[in-house]
Amino acid sequence: MAKHYEMWEKLGLDLEKHDQFLNPVPELFTEIFIKQDNRPEGMDYYDFVVGDIHGVRVKELVAEKDKGNPVISSFCAFVPDELIIAAGGASIGLCAGAQFPIPRAELELPNDICPLIKSSVGFKLERVCPYFEVSDFVVGETTCDGKKKAWEFLNEHISTYVMELPNTKSASGHQLWQSEIERFKLEIEERSGRKITTEKLAEAIKLVNKKRSVLERLYNTRKANPAPISGRDTLLITQLAFFDDPARFIEKTEKLCEELEARIANKQGVVNSEAPRILIAGTPMPLPSWKLHSIIESNGGVVVCEETCTGTRYFESKVAENGQNLAEQLVNLSERAMNINCACFTPNEARVDDILRLANEYNVDGVIYYNLQFCQTYNMEYNKVADALKKADIPVTQIESDFSENDSGQLNTRIQAFLEML
Amino acid sequence: MAKHYEMWEKLGLDLEKHDQFLNPVPELFTEIFIKQDNRPEGMDYYDFVVGDIHGVRVKELVAEKDKGNPVISSFCAFVPDELIIAAGGASIGLCAGAQFPIPRAELELPNDICPLIKSSVGFKLERVCPYFEVSDFVVGETTCDGKKKAWEFLNEHISTYVMELPNTKSASGHQLWQSEIERFKLEIEERSGRKITTEKLAEAIKLVNKKRSVLERLYNTRKANPAPISGRDTLLITQLAFFDDPARFIEKTEKLCEELEARIANKQGVVNSEAPRILIAGTPMPLPSWKLHSIIESNGGVVVCEETCTGTRYFESKVAENGQNLAEQLVNLSERAMNINCACFTPNEARVDDILRLANEYNVDGVIYYNLQFCQTYNMEYNKVADALKKADIPVTQIESDFSENDSGQLNTRIQAFLEML
Ligand code: SF4
Ligand code: SF4
Ligand code: SF4
Ligand code: SF4
Repeated sequence: MAKHYEMWEKLGLDLEKHDQFLNPVPELFTEIFIKQDNRPEGMDYYDFVVGDIHGVRVKELVAEKDKGNPVISSFCAFVPDELIIAAGGASIGLCAGAQFPIPRAELELPNDICPLIKSSVGFKLERVCPYFEVSDFVVGETTCDGKKKAWEFLNEHISTYVMELPNTKSASGHQLWQSEIERFKLEIEERSGRKITTEKLAEAIKLVNKKRSVLERLYNTRKANPAPISGRDTLLITQLAFFDDPARFIEKTEKLCEELEARIANKQGVVNSEAPRILIAGTPMPLPSWKLHSIIESNGGVVVCEETCTGTRYFESKVAENGQNLAEQLVNLSERAMNINCACFTPNEARVDDILRLANEYNVDGVIYYNLQFCQTYNMEYNKVADALKKADIPVTQIESDFSENDSGQLNTRIQAFLEML
Repeated sequence: MAKHYEMWEKLGLDLEKHDQFLNPVPELFTEIFIKQDNRPEGMDYYDFVVGDIHGVRVKELVAEKDKGNPVISSFCAFVPDELIIAAGGASIGLCAGAQFPIPRAELELPNDICPLIKSSVGFKLERVCPYFEVSDFVVGETTCDGKKKAWEFLNEHISTYVMELPNTKSASGHQLWQSEIERFKLEIEERSGRKITTEKLAEAIKLVNKKRSVLERLYNTRKANPAPISGRDTLLITQLAFFDDPARFIEKTEKLCEELEARIANKQGVVNSEAPRILIAGTPMPLPSWKLHSIIESNGGVVVCEETCTGTRYFESKVAENGQNLAEQLVNLSERAMNINCACFTPNEARVDDILRLANEYNVDGVIYYNLQFCQTYNMEYNKVADALKKADIPVTQIESDFSENDSGQLNTRIQAFLEML
């Protein structure tokens, strides 16, 4: 793990804690990722990014900032990256999947809220995330009770702008989100002093769509049997999509896709074609939450798709590119979000359809419904999803977990049993 | 407890379970309410209502229905009763505080959601609430994650109409709620076939404001030291306000207020003036959740105010009566809700001010912050409230609880210690 103490110190990180946080990563990463058999060569790039996770990319962002370009971080698939990029800035997905800062967060927040929220807030409190420190401001949204109230607290530690997401996809819901997109555009312009033009926004829309499309291409390769790439490698790539420079990410991922498509042509898989194929559906798995994938795949299964916000919900919905002026473009941006089937909406029947469709397209043997602890909206959708899957004769089980290793043993037993049953 | 088997059977209640549910109530009620020393005479009426809780009022509602008047139930202080009454109907507050139906609800819903939601849904599943059964439809709202998703489930058992509450009090938030009020008006008119006119709505607004004002008058009597009425008696009255015929409730409560005001003039209290005066702040306590009040008052304290939706949040905000036409009236209805400082809004700073103000006005010795389990929004506001109270030198403690008796012993110990400290 490369060290950049001078930059980290300038950014205001707590260097000692930051070392404590990063030091175990290489061993864990080797164990889970590097030791896999038969990995695609194209994974080199992502391995390199993780090996310098708080280095080269942070350096780029510092350079952007020095040029006066905005660096804006967010926590949800609904926030329109495109506006940030159109203002000449960088957009970072901050939402965090590490146990490390959670005990600190629990000193200030209730214990019984989602670990993702505690981890995100904890990173700021512990000063161990350079992405937080390099951000001009962060963007929250009112997607769930825990997040909604967490922004009030976070705002005491870093300027936090909140977008109000509607609860329904009704006409007034659409209207509210449109006005929130407009308000966000003005906010970026005001804070950065950069104007967002039709041309710049059109470019940004194309760029981010291209990032989504390359992820889609990557996911499509997993439809093959045997799967040409492991679930954990794909998860890692999606997690890095939230941080990386979009153009470079696209280039590297396209190269990887070529390699995977060649593998498919040669009927070459990362596992054999008998491995049970698993779809994970549920809550996001931000960096470095690799536990579930690692348990499934070390027990002989292969994760072939994630219906999560670190999966299909991140890239399936794209922005229409036909906007002729800012007003039309903003509506198009707004519509993309309204096509995401997040459990925060009511009703959300289309998510059940998505899961059935993905189970079918990816030819899965079973579904693991992944629920971060205390995420009530996803938890309450489980029964509906399970009923539909049972009707379609697709085995399903629910796993409630967090980012700690406390439940690894128990999860291992449950997942082993589930895989054996398939 | 009066029995009305014929009516209950017609309504489709599960008679056996319903008996199991109601049978223990008289003993509990005697223990908590009747045995109090020095009760106001005017409590007779409310005792009578509880003694026939599933009888006379249900009969009235059945009669309304037979006349073709709508009976519509709801679960939140935001839902505008006035529109229902203006359509010639009856509005019932259904949100439930009983442990009895919770195990049944937990077969269908996750365990780790708010007991209020489980209790409400459980009443329908168990068929032990005649108010549910007499309702034409129920009205949910998107105030919290648990409720938002519970309506999807409840709708499979009874027609459930959902109002979308905004997450913020921004201009677009106001606009969204106004359009939701308009949509609700049309829904009532369509479902009931009754037209809501300016005159009818003006009357309904006056009536419901009067109900709120009489509760305010009642609460004002508790500002006196010694308090002329116990906290549990006032809680009971507020709980019954959600069910009772508004005109009768106003009349009876006015009479009680006269009695209490005479007591104050005579410096006569229900307890002596040394009893520690407690403000409860937090989540609602629907019928029959009497646990916390009963523990506080059996340990020598007296609850003098509740900053809850079965307290000040129910009546403090009133509807302006100056609307000259339906459009203006609907805006006024909408504004009342936007003046309620519920934790579902972000930010919600004004709630901290409310609590400080009430602590002052009611001259309290300490605040108990009451949090229903898994209510994340209220839980996350605790630290902010506690900081403000500590700055004002007002002792505060947080109690997280549910509707069961499992934690009674532990609560008793904690509350005893808190009262001794005051
Ligand atoms: S699950 Fe919903 S709230 Fe969470 S990141 Fe995805 S879209 Fe946002
Ligand atoms: S996983 Fe659920 S509780 Fe956690 S941040 Fe996302 S929506 Fe909120
Ligand atoms: S606490 Fe909020 S959500 Fe609950 S009943 Fe009151 S206003 Fe409605
Ligand atoms: S108490 Fe909290 S969790 Fe329960 S219904 Fe009210 S707002 Fe929702």
